[in-house]
Amino acid sequence: MKTCLHPKYLIPIEPAATVLQNHALVMQDEKILAVLSSADARQQYPDAQHVELAEHALMPGMVNLHGHSAMSLLRGLADDLSLMDWLNNHIWPAEKKHVSEEFVFDGSVYAMAEMLRGGTTTINDMYFHHEAVARAGLHTGMRTVVGCSVLEFPTGYAADADAYLDKAMAAQQAFQGQSGVAFRLAPHAPYTVSDITFKKIVALADKHDMGIHCHIHESMDEVNDSLRDHGMRPLQRLHQLGLLSTRLIAAHMVHANEDEIQLLAQQGVHIAHNPASNLKLASGFAPIHAMQSAGVNVGIGTDGAASNNKLDLLGDLRMAALLAKAVSNNPTALNAGKALEMATLAGARALGMDKQIGSLVAGKLADIIAIDLSALETLPLFDPVSQIVYAAGREQISHVWVNGRCLMAERQLLNQDAAQLKDKAIWWQQRITAA
Amino acid sequence: MKTCLHPKYLIPIEPAATVLQNHALVMQDEKILAVLSSADARQQYPDAQHVELAEHALMPGMVNLHGHSAMSLLRGLADDLSLMDWLNNHIWPAEKKHVSEEFVFDGSVYAMAEMLRGGTTTINDMYFHHEAVARAGLHTGMRTVVGCSVLEFPTGYAADADAYLDKAMAAQQAFQGQSGVAFRLAPHAPYTVSDITFKKIVALADKHDMGIHCHIHESMDEVNDSLRDHGMRPLQRLHQLGLLSTRLIAAHMVHANEDEIQLLAQQGVHIAHNPASNLKLASGFAPIHAMQSAGVNVGIGTDGAASNNKLDLLGDLRMAALLAKAVSNNPTALNAGKALEMATLAGARALGMDKQIGSLVAGKLADIIAIDLSALETLPLFDPVSQIVYAAGREQISHVWVNGRCLMAERQLLNQDAAQLKDKAIWWQQRITAA
Repeated sequence: MKTCLHPKYLIPIEPAATVLQNHALVMQDEKILAVLSSADARQQYPDAQHVELAEHALMPGMVNLHGHSAMSLLRGLADDLSLMDWLNNHIWPAEKKHVSEEFVFDGSVYAMAEMLRGGTTTINDMYFHHEAVARAGLHTGMRTVVGCSVLEFPTGYAADADAYLDKAMAAQQAFQGQSGVAFRLAPHAPYTVSDITFKKIVALADKHDMGIHCHIHESMDEVNDSLRDHGMRPLQRLHQLGLLSTRLIAAHMVHANEDEIQLLAQQGVHIAHNPASNLKLASGFAPIHAMQSAGVNVGIGTDGAASNNKLDLLGDLRMAALLAKAVSNNPTALNAGKALEMATLAGARALGMDKQIGSLVAGKLADIIAIDLSALETLPLFDPVSQIVYAAGREQISHVWVNGRCLMAERQLLNQDAAQLKDKAIWWQQRITAA
Repeated sequence: MKTCLHPKYLIPIEPAATVLQNHALVMQDEKILAVLSSADARQQYPDAQHVELAEHALMPGMVNLHGHSAMSLLRGLADDLSLMDWLNNHIWPAEKKHVSEEFVFDGSVYAMAEMLRGGTTTINDMYFHHEAVARAGLHTGMRTVVGCSVLEFPTGYAADADAYLDKAMAAQQAFQGQSGVAFRLAPHAPYTVSDITFKKIVALADKHDMGIHCHIHESMDEVNDSLRDHGMRPLQRLHQLGLLSTRLIAAHMVHANEDEIQLLAQQGVHIAHNPASNLKLASGFAPIHAMQSAGVNVGIGTDGAASNNKLDLLGDLRMAALLAKAVSNNPTALNAGKALEMATLAGARALGMDKQIGSLVAGKLADIIAIDLSALETLPLFDPVSQIVYAAGREQISHVWVNGRCLMAERQLLNQDAAQLKDKAIWWQQRITAA
């Protein structure tokens, strides 16, 4: 069975800075079969299901490069607090009391529903109860990279670093060969993981060809504490431990000096930029434009709902594009086209999946979204790319396909019951409030 | 005829930090008659039209404290450019070619429709063709403060400063006594208005008891040019000319040192903060938290659609709350409650209208919005104020009343034909593209 989409605008991301009109995309099974003129598509594939998207832009599904999906259930539980007050007195106690296999599955499914509705088709997650996250991905159809958290101190999930690592490898083993789910080792942060554990992680990643996902240089406190405790900045320490490579996605990297930006570029480290979370927790302003100018690959993430509080990659993309200009004092920085690439192909590249996803190219997997640009809010329309990045809202995303499967049409999730999902969120809300 | 609204949450803004449950608001004609318990409301007003808003928060309509409504027709015409390239090579040529009474009326109506759909009920505008802006306000029902631009150089609208002033006073005269429309003198900026004209404006404002609206300290170039040309920073010059008073709304004020913040506080100057526009044009980061801490009244504006590119005050409010934390390096800065006040009562205060609008208090005019918080994106719900500021989108604003008149219900504009509005926008798009 083939499906042929006829959008008003087709934005393939590859080749860059291209907007096609009168073009169509043909899907077969889980893949993109062809991108060609609409006329040719109708002639060559008369038996395909032809879907008219007369007011829509078609683009690759977005890659959320850093999130903690299950924390959707803690959205708005505590805001406007200092990081340590927020963690010590609100988030960690709530996690200690409630985080379980059930919490993580329900919270991840909920977050994935929100993300799919907002045009995110791949999530690079980091949390606990890895098998629950993986099951949530398979349940919702979201392409899911499960970051298996590793830290030195005990949680309800594991007792010490080795136990976390064992659980990570067991989860990876359990889902081996499952399409749509992958696993990464996720040392939590330089301040929660020892040198020995980092070395084990590097060795395991090499042995099993796995990616690594780690919070790095999120706050100045982290940098200063490392100078005090290790006599060097965290990035330097991780470099000595062999962590800096193309395997690594560094989440945040808010504080990076020029030498560090050069080091990131040389080592091929990927950055997950989280603009909303970095502002909300007053972490600072990541020098994204300087990184990109130095050749560092930068993708974008929402972080968890507890520190954002929306899993709205399109909105955060706009914020990233606006912020990059003021931070670099350059209104031409991170233009709309580059911003769209950041949310798609750059994210795919960071995950080592740019051969499979991130652009609308024949042979890639069909992770695709359609955005209805006929809203009052997105007219007049002089440039569809500008309109998507600067004017459109996630509520204009009408259709979502992952792996060739339509998961949302006309804003309705097709494989989820939204009312049931909301009931479940309210059930958790009552349980958390009562505690 | 009385209407009684029964929301899930009633957020009156006055008293501060209050969320009422099981409460109702009664409107009569253009005013708020009472805020009281839902039970009492049903008993005391059995003949009122009772509207159940079981999943909604009710709050004052928002005040957009700085905009150029008619520029909605230039949305996305030119982006990602330096300010001078953007103005000289794109915006000013387009304005020179197209701005007319018709353009301003159509563009203002269009912007007002977008703003009303997004929960803005008052616009503090600044543009040309003042009577067209006023007519647009009356046509749409938006509460409109018409800022009458004054500058030294000629445009299609007037030849010199005196001609702009004459047109301003004529427009004010023509609409005298019209409810819902007010006029302000709007000297464009320190770099486009002479000392003599500023003095005339101060005298006219005093004589006719009018407010003043001016772009001030938007960019560092403006500050540096003034140091070169006048031997002082613009704010000091305006102070010497007698402009700094409670009559003045200073738009932007991105660059303000500690002495200037004290001066603004002493003189009672109001600030219109425009976070999205300031980022997009790389103007910088306004020190909002420092201003508020010093007692300066700060409201929020979208600026025009050409430099934003959405007229989404709720979105910009979130951005302001997030930015204020990172800029002040303080995650407790501009909390959700203060942010809501900024978009409502602070804006009303800046306009000298805080006795009439800005909070849900008996005797005030009924400018009210309802936000549906039952969306998947705003659950779980631990705190409705946090949820509105940090998680909700403008698409969740379901109902809008201005002056007691319902202008939107269930997302549908009641006195506007959205399809006709869009056709008009497309007509202008084609005309502008062809030129």
